[in-house]
Amino acid sequence: MGTRPGRGTANRGGGRAGTRLRRGGVAMAGGGPRRCRRLEADAARAVLGAADTLLFDCDGVLWRGEAAVGGAAAALGRLAAAGKRLCYVTNNSSRTRAAYTEKLRRLGFPPAEPRHVFGSAYCAARYLRQALPLGAAAYVLGSPALAAELEAVGVPHLGPGPAALPGPAPADWAQAPLDPAVRAVLVGFDEHFSYAKLCQALRYLLRGGPDCLLVGTNRDHRLPLEGGTAIPGTGCLVKAVETAAQREAFIVGKPNRYMFDCVASEFDIDPTRTIMVGDRLDTDILMGNSCGLTTLLTLTGVTTLDEVKGHQESDCPARQSLVPDYYVDSIADLLPALGD
Amino acid sequence: MGTRPGRGTANRGGGRAGTRLRRGGVAMAGGGPRRCRRLEADAARAVLGAADTLLFDCDGVLWRGEAAVGGAAAALGRLAAAGKRLCYVTNNSSRTRAAYTEKLRRLGFPPAEPRHVFGSAYCAARYLRQALPLGAAAYVLGSPALAAELEAVGVPHLGPGPAALPGPAPADWAQAPLDPAVRAVLVGFDEHFSYAKLCQALRYLLRGGPDCLLVGTNRDHRLPLEGGTAIPGTGCLVKAVETAAQREAFIVGKPNRYMFDCVASEFDIDPTRTIMVGDRLDTDILMGNSCGLTTLLTLTGVTTLDEVKGHQESDCPARQSLVPDYYVDSIADLLPALGD
Repeated sequence: MGTRPGRGTANRGGGRAGTRLRRGGVAMAGGGPRRCRRLEADAARAVLGAADTLLFDCDGVLWRGEAAVGGAAAALGRLAAAGKRLCYVTNNSSRTRAAYTEKLRRLGFPPAEPRHVFGSAYCAARYLRQALPLGAAAYVLGSPALAAELEAVGVPHLGPGPAALPGPAPADWAQAPLDPAVRAVLVGFDEHFSYAKLCQALRYLLRGGPDCLLVGTNRDHRLPLEGGTAIPGTGCLVKAVETAAQREAFIVGKPNRYMFDCVASEFDIDPTRTIMVGDRLDTDILMGNSCGLTTLLTLTGVTTLDEVKGHQESDCPARQSLVPDYYVDSIADLLPALGD
Repeated sequence: MGTRPGRGTANRGGGRAGTRLRRGGVAMAGGGPRRCRRLEADAARAVLGAADTLLFDCDGVLWRGEAAVGGAAAALGRLAAAGKRLCYVTNNSSRTRAAYTEKLRRLGFPPAEPRHVFGSAYCAARYLRQALPLGAAAYVLGSPALAAELEAVGVPHLGPGPAALPGPAPADWAQAPLDPAVRAVLVGFDEHFSYAKLCQALRYLLRGGPDCLLVGTNRDHRLPLEGGTAIPGTGCLVKAVETAAQREAFIVGKPNRYMFDCVASEFDIDPTRTIMVGDRLDTDILMGNSCGLTTLLTLTGVTTLDEVKGHQESDCPARQSLVPDYYVDSIADLLPALGD
């Protein structure tokens, strides 16, 4: 890891084995197999009753693109009415906390405040605010939203938007001006990613050596779109910068626990009373499992039950760590357990 | 490997252990340690006398930027006069074979023909000509030189130059037109590399599945420039595409043996009578060692003798494979062994 760990840390949640034994009668502490069960209404009442916080991934769980998942808003409304704390954890670095609360409102979800939204743009800004010396700036490969989150926490930055090479020859590229204040390179989703930006990122990292942080919002390799298509994800851009710099980025997004640590340090979170709800095994479920949360997969996003079964039947510990505790076809399936 | 192996293959050079025993009295076949020795004049006469072909890396060996390494042109002149076959093997994909012969001429090296130059642009074009069905095209992330080499061997292509995203939203990017003839994505050095191009590359790879080849010219992660600076190398771009596509590219450049196989299939090459001369351990020397060539490191480029010693003292077979048979400070050091 080329960067310093975040200072904001959380309860490390050691209560997993006990919770498991209570819930399913399956001993987990000895490394026994994980089992994923459908969360039927009776079990759902018990599981939800034992939780005070639910963390929701957004795309593929609450909505797909601009359309809310049917029944999702009603389910969250009932959870809120039952006094549950609802937080939103997303690797998407292209929207601010404020934009997420506005989208939740627009799609009929219960009112949320920006402080309940933990996007990778906010979490990256928070990390840099803690890790950078006062006045130090970040060179940003990312969106206006990422820049806005940096601004909101007072981290100076440069970079968003298109950039051209400063001349026709490699010797020109290696002599473009560098901002003396830059002490971090931050890589998020950047539709203007280019060789010119990669070049500047490398030059800041070479100039600063270990004193220049390298931070990525997430490693998602693709963004799925409606209709089964996909576009390259931030993970591709992070890999390009890591390859140039020959060092590993600190990743704030799922499955890294930093995103959960952000939630836990800003709210009074007991991991054993927290449910992580997501549609991706290698981000949502892995983070939830490794932070000692109860994990609930919904099949409204990118994962099929066959993939879960494949991991479940594997002897490989890395694959076992991708198996959720429970699954539902959709979070609307929680409605019967939540009464009227 | 997501691509078919090239059809043009070469003598696999099984005579390494015997050659070693003859040369240094050190048994290599049993996996004993490799030793790198300075090539003094007496040994140089014997080593050069036993060789009929020398393969030269270019930048850092023959020249640095636009300046020839002192004495290098004279040394190659004498090798040519002594009847040695001289070939040039370079991972640089930004120049054609013709441009290399012109540069050799300009810097005073003995006359070379384009067919003696094996740049990664030419080798990639040759690979695609063999591996693609007739009429199939390549989507190219690369330079005009890469396009010219494709043209020279008759592989249709599209892509070089800047590309813009075809609209403001991800849904637009996933609907840009795709050329129906494209059956390969070729990644070389591309100063116009951008998210838009990465997106198109992924879309061709997703459309074609295993029937769309993914080929990279090389994995060099940086291009060193004069003055100790560096810019990102083709390896960064290849990694970005590989990450998006979640598959491995076929790499034509060093240390992959494909580049040597190109030389060997176009000339009558006996690996045991061939010397690979280079300045990089992880490309030039590794390819030479793994193809059964005699390997000679020159210290005029990116490698120090301390790095060689580190590998030599390591027990790790992967590091041992980076140790050259011999080193010289500069190929000008060969002059005394070559008479007047």
